[in-house]
Amino acid sequence: MDRLILHEDPISGNCYKIRLVAAHVGVPIERRSYAVLKGETRTREFLARVNANGRIPVLQIGDRFLPESGAACVYLADGASLIPSDRFERADMFRWMFFEQYSHEPNVATLRFWRAFVGEDQLSAAQRALIPGKRAAGDAALDLMDTHLQTHAFFVGERLTLADIALYAYTHVAGEGGFDLARWPAVAAWCARVAAQPGHIGFDA
Amino acid sequence: MDRLILHEDPISGNCYKIRLVAAHVGVPIERRSYAVLKGETRTREFLARVNANGRIPVLQIGDRFLPESGAACVYLADGASLIPSDRFERADMFRWMFFEQYSHEPNVATLRFWRAFVGEDQLSAAQRALIPGKRAAGDAALDLMDTHLQTHAFFVGERLTLADIALYAYTHVAGEGGFDLARWPAVAAWCARVAAQPGHIGFDA
Repeated sequence: MDRLILHEDPISGNCYKIRLVAAHVGVPIERRSYAVLKGETRTREFLARVNANGRIPVLQIGDRFLPESGAACVYLADGASLIPSDRFERADMFRWMFFEQYSHEPNVATLRFWRAFVGEDQLSAAQRALIPGKRAAGDAALDLMDTHLQTHAFFVGERLTLADIALYAYTHVAGEGGFDLARWPAVAAWCARVAAQPGHIGFDA
Repeated sequence: MDRLILHEDPISGNCYKIRLVAAHVGVPIERRSYAVLKGETRTREFLARVNANGRIPVLQIGDRFLPESGAACVYLADGASLIPSDRFERADMFRWMFFEQYSHEPNVATLRFWRAFVGEDQLSAAQRALIPGKRAAGDAALDLMDTHLQTHAFFVGERLTLADIALYAYTHVAGEGGFDLARWPAVAAWCARVAAQPGHIGFDA
């Protein structure tokens, strides 16, 4: 099998998703750290060699580079039970993964990054102006998740899939962005359920 | 096979993606139209029956509802050549589909919607403040695509996949959002290539 190297920033939930999938499927990956806050993913070398998009994570598979956390999760989980074999369930898993990247991550993860890592007093006026919209959209994403989880143990097919891993990464630390999970009890219970799965590893593992 | 109904707004590129995939794989779908601009996807009935997220498109498969354009494309293309059989290529297809939803659509599609459908004079001050950031991010997304397409005929595996369809939908009408494709000649040539594929249908088909 090709050597796997995860180009990442340890504070990124998008990177944690990939480590969590690798742990569940039992595939060892090496890790290379870059500090986003120090601009280490915008250097000429990173842009030329790892990702022209200047973003992490990137999963290196031999000499090929795969950006986008969702794509890396799909690669690693290929053939594993984390991807449902049923056609509708598999598409429904992608439904939640796209929802996470479009409606959840830009709000829940960005507010966490700004508040817990950049610092609110360091934000630009333009960033500050975005906070109310991101707060409302993050609340709406958590509302939608909570409604679903009131009647389901997991997002798809009543068992752990990539949909849960994609949504867990930033949801379980949403408090760092000022989203108090006590407001969304079904989400909080699901977080505990995901963390109790065999093979689970924590953010700092 | 289950009856397929696309809940959509005909002006939405996200909905067009699904019709384009259905045309390529030769699967008939019925269409139900809702006008986003008239709030028809925010009615109590729509939220309760079609999508609690208040968004289109939603692909109805029998009595099940599948939101998110990418998920609907995956469902329809299951087993077709639009999804590569090679493990890396399949993950790489999802790489571009996630890139489209995260880095392209919120910029290129939103500016088109505001300019061509809402009207710039109807925008709120908060929306207006977002324009420069979305313009720069849309430019960056098109730059990245152009660089890739300077050495590739299609995004993945040198043939049409869901990655091309996902990116084509809003790129070929990017001019309506003020992105002049003459600045990105490899992107413009790829648009022509996608439109020339057997089975292709236009936005208004």
